[in-house]
Amino acid sequence: MKDFVIKGHLVDSESPDRLRCLENGYLVVTDGLCRGVFPALPERWASLPLADFGDRLVVPGMCDLHVHAGQFAFRGLGMDLELLEWLDTYTFPEEAKFKDLAYAELVYDAFVSVLRRSCTTRASIFATIHPEATLLLMEKLEASGLRTLVGKVNMDRNCPDPVREPDVATALRTTEDWICAALSRFQHTRPILTPRFIPTCSDALMEGLKGLQRKYGLPTQSHLSENYGEIAWVRELSPDADHYGDAYDRFGMFGGDHRCIMAHCVHSGDEELELIRRNGVFIAHSPESNMNIASGVAPISRYLAMGLRVGLATDLAGGSQESMLRAMMHAIQASKLRWRLLDERVAPLTAAQAFWLATAGGGEFFGKVGRFLEGYEFDALVFDDSALLHAIPLDLPSRLERLIYLGDDRNLCAKYVAGQRLF
Amino acid sequence: MKDFVIKGHLVDSESPDRLRCLENGYLVVTDGLCRGVFPALPERWASLPLADFGDRLVVPGMCDLHVHAGQFAFRGLGMDLELLEWLDTYTFPEEAKFKDLAYAELVYDAFVSVLRRSCTTRASIFATIHPEATLLLMEKLEASGLRTLVGKVNMDRNCPDPVREPDVATALRTTEDWICAALSRFQHTRPILTPRFIPTCSDALMEGLKGLQRKYGLPTQSHLSENYGEIAWVRELSPDADHYGDAYDRFGMFGGDHRCIMAHCVHSGDEELELIRRNGVFIAHSPESNMNIASGVAPISRYLAMGLRVGLATDLAGGSQESMLRAMMHAIQASKLRWRLLDERVAPLTAAQAFWLATAGGGEFFGKVGRFLEGYEFDALVFDDSALLHAIPLDLPSRLERLIYLGDDRNLCAKYVAGQRLF
Repeated sequence: MKDFVIKGHLVDSESPDRLRCLENGYLVVTDGLCRGVFPALPERWASLPLADFGDRLVVPGMCDLHVHAGQFAFRGLGMDLELLEWLDTYTFPEEAKFKDLAYAELVYDAFVSVLRRSCTTRASIFATIHPEATLLLMEKLEASGLRTLVGKVNMDRNCPDPVREPDVATALRTTEDWICAALSRFQHTRPILTPRFIPTCSDALMEGLKGLQRKYGLPTQSHLSENYGEIAWVRELSPDADHYGDAYDRFGMFGGDHRCIMAHCVHSGDEELELIRRNGVFIAHSPESNMNIASGVAPISRYLAMGLRVGLATDLAGGSQESMLRAMMHAIQASKLRWRLLDERVAPLTAAQAFWLATAGGGEFFGKVGRFLEGYEFDALVFDDSALLHAIPLDLPSRLERLIYLGDDRNLCAKYVAGQRLF
Repeated sequence: MKDFVIKGHLVDSESPDRLRCLENGYLVVTDGLCRGVFPALPERWASLPLADFGDRLVVPGMCDLHVHAGQFAFRGLGMDLELLEWLDTYTFPEEAKFKDLAYAELVYDAFVSVLRRSCTTRASIFATIHPEATLLLMEKLEASGLRTLVGKVNMDRNCPDPVREPDVATALRTTEDWICAALSRFQHTRPILTPRFIPTCSDALMEGLKGLQRKYGLPTQSHLSENYGEIAWVRELSPDADHYGDAYDRFGMFGGDHRCIMAHCVHSGDEELELIRRNGVFIAHSPESNMNIASGVAPISRYLAMGLRVGLATDLAGGSQESMLRAMMHAIQASKLRWRLLDERVAPLTAAQAFWLATAGGGEFFGKVGRFLEGYEFDALVFDDSALLHAIPLDLPSRLERLIYLGDDRNLCAKYVAGQRLF
């Protein structure tokens, strides 16, 4: 059932700055792909089954570009430290538990069930260093109907024994076995190479991972320029690198010949940004996490104006909430405080820009995803905002803005991923 | 039924910085007042009816020190302007509609029903300039079981005709009639004098309001030092005042001889803060609003260290959400960005401090409210956090922290105000 017509109030992004809205419009889907939106249903598709969503809003699915499944169990906890102490105190001890498959089963069950019910249709996910638990997570995600990239994490230095890979050879062999298992077992849940970040990855590990990247043509994901202490540490660890991004790029693990996500980029300098632009690296903007562990605020409207590729992310469990609606709210709010407290030259984000980040901006990482254009995969969310009282009729941009601030999973009444209806 | 015992995990504030936690504790209530918390139920109260909340958390009710009922219908909208433009573009046109009692009925019905279902047990509320609509709001609040202070707004200059009182004499007569009606008709919904803010209140109006304040012994509420443009305007309008706070104080409308709430105090200088301290003025910290309309972030941990009286507020519709859980989250997040982006000398707020603001800090404005101490009025919330998966047992402070970030009205399973159970 991948040929059908949706009727409803259609909203997607025309550009990073502008919404495209069509009241009572028709959206035609054949073979799981959008054929476009139409004010009246063209005759040639009149016989397709029609789902009439009436007064509800239909928007593209949202893509969470950076989320740690292995941190799901402590979301909303331990928000009193900065990054490096936070990793040592909360994150590493928690991630160590995923050696135990029974624990992984418990947490990943909950994570996948929450993600399936959320606004997220696609996600790029960090697991932990454990290959078995990572495959278990991928199995659950495959069954969920979501489309995801999942990374077994690599780290072989500067971290406690239980989350450190014993040596480079073992790390690479384990990682390659995991890649092969994942590629053969899953269709919609694909492996992504995941060196945690420079401080925990030796040069030899990075070189080996580049080999695997080339051999299997895989995308990569990591962290970049999130926190001042982290950046200073990378400067010590990689004294020859021009900047933090260059410390990845020296190993070919910074886009260019492959798709690459770098989470945060809160404090990236001009040279680093230029390399991000040149290599087509995707920035995963994680506003709630960047507030919660007091990292700062990335100047996203500047990045958009520079033509950088930026998507939105929840970054559980630096962020507490899986909701991409909340992530949009936090993106706007953080940008306003950045404007007011730090730099009035960088404009606050608008609701339309936050929506772009959550849909089209991140969607591009997954291919033709995140808009209702012809040929795009049909990921969509249907929102019922009737419970959010408003006393006068509102236009579609206003209804979308209200959902960003006031909506939650109760307002999400239907969800499609690649043409398949999940609920 | 105002004599009973509550059993559950009890959490309230020992001080602004420290929680007081008692697992499986007993809380005795007689005549609507707390008699204290006990690890075992004292024999003398053993015969009282007992509500056993099992593994749930029982915390003091929350007090919203600043919320605009007349702006409820546009919460989550129009977040693209700063204060003065926002007032002209969105707020004043919306508030003008409350001349129409049918419109007021619609909006106030929704507002009160949302507030009743929320974590708020007490609130200090702005209505609009309209006395009839304000009485209608008070009627609904009185029926809700909440304890509130409600202000008919006063404004006679620098605002559009539909929300301007025609002259001082009319304004004062109307206000006095409203006060008398409210005092005679309502027991738990009391009038509070509400000059909107200096820019919209002439000297003659302020003088007249002081007369009413004295005559009826009323509390007062207004706005203070929220936004740079506003502060500059007050400097022009009140050239003789030492600071914005002094512009109220010159009329005796700044605490001292009466209870007074000033919302925001984002940019208060040392002299103003000293006057706030001396006069015992309550600061209504409104973090979400101060983000949304880009006002800035008040240095709340500094205010607490100075011994100022500070409570938390949603400030609908500068804030979008009526939830005091969300207000705590925003207070912590905003304080972290202030620390990171503006001033590392002012520490970020902890979860315990945010909880103090929401309960004891604001509660003090209403009397002995906001803690589970002997003689305090029994306002309480019971939270069921079982749906928020956690894989290992958590202590009570951690469970409270998770509720701040992840909880919503679905987790709130019982609510008491002054000894009466609302649901």
